[in-house]
Amino acid sequence: MMSKKIEITLTTQKKDKPDYNKLGFGRYFTDHMFVMDYHTDKGWYDPRIVPYEPISLSPSSMVFHYGQAVFEGMKAYRTEKGQVLLFRPDKNLSRLNTSNERLDIPAVDEAFVIDAIKKLITVDKEWVPTAEGQSLYIRPFIIATEPYLGVRPSSEYKLIVILSPVGSYYGDQLKPVKIYVEDDYVRSVKGGVGFTKTSGNYAASLKAQTEAEKVGYAQVLWLDGVEKKYVEEVGSMNIFFKIDGEVVTPALNGSILAGVTRDSVINLLKHWGVPVSEKKIAIEDIYEASKAGKLEEVFGTGTAAVISPVGELKWEDHVMNVNNGEIGPISQKLYDAITGIQSGKIKDEFGWTTDVEELATIK
Amino acid sequence: MMSKKIEITLTTQKKDKPDYNKLGFGRYFTDHMFVMDYHTDKGWYDPRIVPYEPISLSPSSMVFHYGQAVFEGMKAYRTEKGQVLLFRPDKNLSRLNTSNERLDIPAVDEAFVIDAIKKLITVDKEWVPTAEGQSLYIRPFIIATEPYLGVRPSSEYKLIVILSPVGSYYGDQLKPVKIYVEDDYVRSVKGGVGFTKTSGNYAASLKAQTEAEKVGYAQVLWLDGVEKKYVEEVGSMNIFFKIDGEVVTPALNGSILAGVTRDSVINLLKHWGVPVSEKKIAIEDIYEASKAGKLEEVFGTGTAAVISPVGELKWEDHVMNVNNGEIGPISQKLYDAITGIQSGKIKDEFGWTTDVEELATIK
Ligand SMILES: Cc1ncc(COP(=O)(O)O)c(C=O)c1O
Ligand SMILES: Cc1ncc(COP(=O)(O)O)c(C=O)c1O
Repeated sequence: MMSKKIEITLTTQKKDKPDYNKLGFGRYFTDHMFVMDYHTDKGWYDPRIVPYEPISLSPSSMVFHYGQAVFEGMKAYRTEKGQVLLFRPDKNLSRLNTSNERLDIPAVDEAFVIDAIKKLITVDKEWVPTAEGQSLYIRPFIIATEPYLGVRPSSEYKLIVILSPVGSYYGDQLKPVKIYVEDDYVRSVKGGVGFTKTSGNYAASLKAQTEAEKVGYAQVLWLDGVEKKYVEEVGSMNIFFKIDGEVVTPALNGSILAGVTRDSVINLLKHWGVPVSEKKIAIEDIYEASKAGKLEEVFGTGTAAVISPVGELKWEDHVMNVNNGEIGPISQKLYDAITGIQSGKIKDEFGWTTDVEELATIK
Repeated sequence: MMSKKIEITLTTQKKDKPDYNKLGFGRYFTDHMFVMDYHTDKGWYDPRIVPYEPISLSPSSMVFHYGQAVFEGMKAYRTEKGQVLLFRPDKNLSRLNTSNERLDIPAVDEAFVIDAIKKLITVDKEWVPTAEGQSLYIRPFIIATEPYLGVRPSSEYKLIVILSPVGSYYGDQLKPVKIYVEDDYVRSVKGGVGFTKTSGNYAASLKAQTEAEKVGYAQVLWLDGVEKKYVEEVGSMNIFFKIDGEVVTPALNGSILAGVTRDSVINLLKHWGVPVSEKKIAIEDIYEASKAGKLEEVFGTGTAAVISPVGELKWEDHVMNVNNGEIGPISQKLYDAITGIQSGKIKDEFGWTTDVEELATIK
């Protein structure tokens, strides 16, 4: 069994805080990080909180060559009372282990890592933003560190958690974005790793993203890799459509990520009695709905932007305008509900939030 | 324009050489490495040969999170006269740029990097093995180093070249291997990154590889990601079949790697007048040929093992024995010809080899 004791080494040189009005996303990091090592002979060992600093790796470390790497992304929010809340961290940690399983990386103890994250945030609590819309982004990631050039699972890993105070990912997040439906490049296919948060999925998506930006679109909507007919997900968001009163989203089919926000949205809609279903959605049907004036709302869901309304979809030669390029009522209601729960302003009826000061396993 | 001058800093502490009878593959590294940096504002800059040492990276370096990384693999061979030869390095460098293009990584100057590799090998020349079958494995790789958490191409990169004296990748390389035809997991699909040497491709392949090993198979043969009907390639080799006198290999279709060894094999076979063609090959047809006693030889091709004869293929419930589990005459002839050219024992009629001491661009 792994030692549950987390060694803490505090920094002797605290960094200056950045200008919190210009945080952007993922640019500034707090004073400390959590690190834990793995070796086949020892399991996960030496959990520790140390000053945020460069990591030193052999140039032959497997992560650089064979990409055995997974990550998660979640946020901590400060309430008006000064508490710091996490939103459904259990979902992120269980998804981390799902990714680990597929990438042949050893599983972590989920409850222990959640506690470690809570401890880390407590140490760096003064970095958690207080202003509306800001939060502390939490990035746990695991990389293969064995110095060896050969294609097989690494015998050594590092789990690292870093923290970044952030504004919102897409700037002013409720301004609807324009999305380009990608029918050339493919992100993933059943049997692949599309349902995991492994680094290679994102590398593979860059080119399409760059090309979409060149023609004025903020993000790409991926189609299935086999027939290029069915809608999958956006760069780092799941996608929802409201058509003729019903909300639909692609079913989890093995090639898209099971988003935590996606799950929260489905739960909220069901709770409100709004018809919602997960299914195979042909892009052709979206286009037909749009022509018939029945495509009422489109929005992406993800930790970074929470709800990101889509104002325009371009598929082949067809440009579909959605709700006059404005945010729709369901998108707004979902945004308000989720951010309300996250920031402690609305009562959390679902048990989704947890206070960083409540530790489950570390004594 | 980038400065063509390579700054050389020699190590003050040479390492002990490993036991050259027990080299294995990718485990030992020489005394120096080549490093060059990239920044959007400067292009590739500061090319240098420095002591082999750990690299220090911010935990938020993009390579750890979004996997923007590509690599190459080639070898240097010592001739009986003591020369050191490279085999078709131009093919590897042009493939590196093909990978770069797809992964949205800035291109490198191919001739310059070949020269840099030659200089590096010259500095570490005493590490190039002399025994038959041994060689110096060369691993150029590029990683995204910008410290930023957001899915977009990095603005900073490092190109690093490391060298490893190696025995042969698969141990005794002419012992036929058993291959498992994978019909569950998928490696790549058209529109994806399967034709590149990006790290994520290898991470995605580990699980299938591990499962194949558990049931006694050395490697996995991938099928196409769409129909799971057509043969693609092996873990880190292309695949060839000799059926009824004709040699066939899967055509380059966008999801498999354009192997340098594959190309050399095709050229040699054509040169010898052996019928060879690149086409779509259904695994069903391989099975039919096997049943009809017409599957004469199967072999993989790759830099690591050169030619790796396949003695058994398992597809669904069918076990296909190939040439009684022995190496076939064409496989042997190709192995002898390629390793003969590489080691300078056979005259190089194709202009495939180049001496590490002949520099093209660096004065
Ligand atoms: C590919 C992909 N899809 C969807 C999402 C949304 O998931 P979540 O709501 O858990 O942030 C993300 C971001 O994590 C992602 O990277
Ligand atoms: C996926 C894959 N296919 C095929 C090959 C064989 O290519 P080459 O002959 O250039 O080594 C390799 C190895 O480089 C590889 O990684």
